[in-house]
Amino acid sequence: MNMKKLIMLGAGLALLPMAGFAQEAEVAPTFDEIGPYIMTTLLFLVGGFLVFWMAAGFTMLEAGLVRSKNVTTQLTKNIALFSIAGIMYWLVGFNLMYPGDFNGYVGGFFNITVLEAVGLGADEASLDYASVASDFFFQLMFVAATASIVSGALAERIKLWPFLAFVVVLTGFMYPISGSWQWGGGWLSEMGFSDFAGSTVVHSVGGWAALAGAIVLGPRLGKYKDGRVNPMPGSNLALATLGTFILWLGWFGFNGGSQLAAGTVGDITDVGRIFANTNMAASAGAVTALILTQILYKKVDLTMVLNGALAGLVAITAEPLYPTLFGALWIGAVGGVIVVFAVPLLDKLKIDDVVGAIPVHLFAGIWGTIAVVFYNDGTSLMTQLTGIVAYGVFTFFVSLVVWYIFKMTMGIRVSQESEVTGLDLSELGMEAYPEFSKG
Amino acid sequence: MNMKKLIMLGAGLALLPMAGFAQEAEVAPTFDEIGPYIMTTLLFLVGGFLVFWMAAGFTMLEAGLVRSKNVTTQLTKNIALFSIAGIMYWLVGFNLMYPGDFNGYVGGFFNITVLEAVGLGADEASLDYASVASDFFFQLMFVAATASIVSGALAERIKLWPFLAFVVVLTGFMYPISGSWQWGGGWLSEMGFSDFAGSTVVHSVGGWAALAGAIVLGPRLGKYKDGRVNPMPGSNLALATLGTFILWLGWFGFNGGSQLAAGTVGDITDVGRIFANTNMAASAGAVTALILTQILYKKVDLTMVLNGALAGLVAITAEPLYPTLFGALWIGAVGGVIVVFAVPLLDKLKIDDVVGAIPVHLFAGIWGTIAVVFYNDGTSLMTQLTGIVAYGVFTFFVSLVVWYIFKMTMGIRVSQESEVTGLDLSELGMEAYPEFSKG
Amino acid sequence: MNMKKLIMLGAGLALLPMAGFAQEAEVAPTFDEIGPYIMTTLLFLVGGFLVFWMAAGFTMLEAGLVRSKNVTTQLTKNIALFSIAGIMYWLVGFNLMYPGDFNGYVGGFFNITVLEAVGLGADEASLDYASVASDFFFQLMFVAATASIVSGALAERIKLWPFLAFVVVLTGFMYPISGSWQWGGGWLSEMGFSDFAGSTVVHSVGGWAALAGAIVLGPRLGKYKDGRVNPMPGSNLALATLGTFILWLGWFGFNGGSQLAAGTVGDITDVGRIFANTNMAASAGAVTALILTQILYKKVDLTMVLNGALAGLVAITAEPLYPTLFGALWIGAVGGVIVVFAVPLLDKLKIDDVVGAIPVHLFAGIWGTIAVVFYNDGTSLMTQLTGIVAYGVFTFFVSLVVWYIFKMTMGIRVSQESEVTGLDLSELGMEAYPEFSKG
Repeated sequence: MNMKKLIMLGAGLALLPMAGFAQEAEVAPTFDEIGPYIMTTLLFLVGGFLVFWMAAGFTMLEAGLVRSKNVTTQLTKNIALFSIAGIMYWLVGFNLMYPGDFNGYVGGFFNITVLEAVGLGADEASLDYASVASDFFFQLMFVAATASIVSGALAERIKLWPFLAFVVVLTGFMYPISGSWQWGGGWLSEMGFSDFAGSTVVHSVGGWAALAGAIVLGPRLGKYKDGRVNPMPGSNLALATLGTFILWLGWFGFNGGSQLAAGTVGDITDVGRIFANTNMAASAGAVTALILTQILYKKVDLTMVLNGALAGLVAITAEPLYPTLFGALWIGAVGGVIVVFAVPLLDKLKIDDVVGAIPVHLFAGIWGTIAVVFYNDGTSLMTQLTGIVAYGVFTFFVSLVVWYIFKMTMGIRVSQESEVTGLDLSELGMEAYPEFSKG
Repeated sequence: MNMKKLIMLGAGLALLPMAGFAQEAEVAPTFDEIGPYIMTTLLFLVGGFLVFWMAAGFTMLEAGLVRSKNVTTQLTKNIALFSIAGIMYWLVGFNLMYPGDFNGYVGGFFNITVLEAVGLGADEASLDYASVASDFFFQLMFVAATASIVSGALAERIKLWPFLAFVVVLTGFMYPISGSWQWGGGWLSEMGFSDFAGSTVVHSVGGWAALAGAIVLGPRLGKYKDGRVNPMPGSNLALATLGTFILWLGWFGFNGGSQLAAGTVGDITDVGRIFANTNMAASAGAVTALILTQILYKKVDLTMVLNGALAGLVAITAEPLYPTLFGALWIGAVGGVIVVFAVPLLDKLKIDDVVGAIPVHLFAGIWGTIAVVFYNDGTSLMTQLTGIVAYGVFTFFVSLVVWYIFKMTMGIRVSQESEVTGLDLSELGMEAYPEFSKG
Repeated sequence: MNMKKLIMLGAGLALLPMAGFAQEAEVAPTFDEIGPYIMTTLLFLVGGFLVFWMAAGFTMLEAGLVRSKNVTTQLTKNIALFSIAGIMYWLVGFNLMYPGDFNGYVGGFFNITVLEAVGLGADEASLDYASVASDFFFQLMFVAATASIVSGALAERIKLWPFLAFVVVLTGFMYPISGSWQWGGGWLSEMGFSDFAGSTVVHSVGGWAALAGAIVLGPRLGKYKDGRVNPMPGSNLALATLGTFILWLGWFGFNGGSQLAAGTVGDITDVGRIFANTNMAASAGAVTALILTQILYKKVDLTMVLNGALAGLVAITAEPLYPTLFGALWIGAVGGVIVVFAVPLLDKLKIDDVVGAIPVHLFAGIWGTIAVVFYNDGTSLMTQLTGIVAYGVFTFFVSLVVWYIFKMTMGIRVSQESEVTGLDLSELGMEAYPEFSKG
């Protein structure tokens, strides 16, 4: 690789006298002019690869929390949904979500994403922002996260292809349309709704779509029998814990990158605040669930601690910048409380959410969106509630319709025999752990 | 997210004429003024998330090296200790460790960490350093690493809550007090003690606390019986290897970030040196353990290779900058030798260290601190030994006292039945791999 | 750590008046002069740690795709090969590959890599490039990736030490010699061959070495019996999927870092393009394998989807910059097609490639190198084919000779009993999952 560079340098040197006339005439841009663009583009690239990593986090979390007979299917769904999101967001989503100077309800359809030219000149670049490619790369990772949330809740009984068909609709259309209301400059952003990195726009949306799916799909066989909740423990808590740590790591990119700027003292300092607050909220959510499960059940529940950390992260996502560290602590802690109480509540309602995605992403997402008002003076509770309801109504009902159509047309649930055998053998013919016998 | 930015830009443009009078009067800072601050803050953020990732590395390493009946407990301890460290270091530790222009023995207590204001102006920032939030975020990850070291050594027989109580003391008080002697500008730093990224300040301290705990706690049931050492193989070497790779990756942030500056040619080049040396020391430690176990036992021992890599990393941590690549090679290789000989030595002393944390972090840490004198001319062997002894005496004896108090008051060891059954079922009622039957 | 910095600052201030005479005379460099050097060095460090992470990705992928009785051996080989590569590339490889202004066939032997001085001055640095240490760190990760490719293909029957001996030859000599033809400014680079990040230079080379090894070594016992292919399913698809996600993440560094510059608007924007294209090619490869296995076998095959993603990544590696997103999509998709058809083809030829490394790295690598001509106008098909053939002939035949010499002298294959028992117990005496009984 060195050589290519050397050759280019050589060519550059050869052209130098000529450049003296042609290019030097328009003075080379200084770092004062291009530094912020470079730093913000870098923020998107680093933030983007961290959020990419969350795809692996969701995959490991879900693979660890399902029973071993369904692990291959869960792995397949996760890598497939990420890949489909990447294609749909390019084909439709990105330009539907960010349609320029837009302030309505639905942007323009089917404007395929086009990147800047190779070797862009400084005079052609948006020097007050960042490269389009880096922005696309960063935003793409968010839509994939939304789809991952759905995948966990509906595990162990949904068919592969109808699930992937839903991912097409969600990542190509639903998420970008509702996302444009806020981040595309639509009506909610006009109204003053505030959701820094997406407690509502990303996490609640995923949660609402999952809730609709869980209702249409129904619980796993034997989950609720004779008025009792039948526990179905995850097959690999080491993977579930790994997944949680991956998500926690990725969240620094998720929230930090959403500062959308890194080239001034104020911006990079803000990114630092966001990192510190994000970590605090996760810690507080985990510790809260730790203490609370000890008190309530006399035994610490690891899956609750993991989901507590994640709920803390979701809760701080709507406003990771303005709170003090103490603010991040209590906002995250309330996230932990929500999870500990909401998981059994859903079971009472016989809504079967395999990994706890609805408490973590929907309930803690709503909480985080409300909590914005405590530290960000520019927001009002009414506007926050309006946004929460708008995203809820739109996503829940459109999802409900889509799931019903899929149910009526192709069917979304595997057969009873398949479910008992496990989706891995019945649907894919491939076990995740073929050599480890079942206890 | 785009939109928020666009709105802000819009607002900025609207204010431009006004700014012409108000702000432009104090000339906007140039990149020459703010570039170093931005780069160093970025170094702390990137370095910090890499060291965060080490928490997952310790977790996977330990989960892989304990028996399957104790995996859930080990996972719980690790995510809990990280979360507690995050809260205690905010509440007490950070300001106790870095108390300003301090050169004594104990800084001021209970100065809760406060971050800079949102949207900090360049004139309010420490332009010759980095943002407080990014520094706090980075340093916080180090205290968590210290606590993780303890967790591995005491696995498979310690109660959850007393362990977490020790983490409170260690991360809130012990580590910050002794850390301030060196990095807070205390007496050891005054004396010329040198420990770049913490072979002693972080790793030995964790090792001493673990050693005291292992002595007070005693070995696992049946580990040393009839004069023989009973091997208790780890349940999942794939996870242990993953954990080692994660730690190796995180170490680039650990050592590289400890340059504490990245905005000049000299500083960023030094960070590059540190990365290359860190990688070399790890490689040398691993290869040494590989060859040595082949020679000594006629069979390569993977867990020794993993610990050899880690010992190489610990050894180079006290001085990753000045050595040549050859220096890093032999310093790391000696780390590998230490591990191969120290693991059986501890067993002879009937000190039961489940994951080899004491050889890796304490013994290789001492070695690395001594090795500083070979390449860093500003240091003396006597001063290095003084530092090593000071940290050892303080941490070992305070830990001993704390462990004894906990033993006398709440008890620190699970019952014999619990230990035989496994802590997961007896203490938490939750298995890590409920479906995989035991061989 | 803070303190050291403060002391240095203090010392700096004390020296300031003196510096006014000595140093200030040569004016301090501006960010316009040093910014590009800092940014490109940072690109190598971040890109480098991402590519380092690929070592863990290969390890997890391979550990997941072998049977449980061979997992410890596979883990050992991977951490050992990475460590050996780190030492050999320092000792011989780096300077053999990049011998300065070289354009021949073999560079100078045994020039050990030497880093810049500590605290390099701006006047001593290659301000138009990056720090030597960061460049060495980055390039080192590429040679390790090459060796990892070989390890997967030859799993489950090769002896540990002959494999590691091959790694010594590959990483110290073979890869650097052939690598210098292109990236060291040798004859292929003179001729105009184009391989941006190494579809041929890295991936095909690994694939050719693996192919030669697989032929000399022969298939696993019982793999091809009575004209039938006997499936030997991997023991842990969760790890295999994790490994794929890790590789995908690392690839952003692999391709993005190969831009070799990040300090101008054009360069950082190009890095963004590369990230977006890399992600698109992986997504397209995965989706293609998903759909194709459903059509061909009526069941989605997760291992094909994983390898499809990897083949997409390999395919885009020769030219991740110039293609449009649609270009990346179809180039990656063809990679997915190649994998789905090449895996059974190799089985027909009774070439036993345990993890599919040859289809992914060799075949998709050739495809990617050819595909350069579609988007990069400066290349010709004839030159691309010349490069492909040159690397193939050299690597395949030298590998063949080396493998034969090893076979004749030390023997490269374990005994039949060892292979049946599993290499972990027979060669290392250590099982990866000792408590999980075999089904």
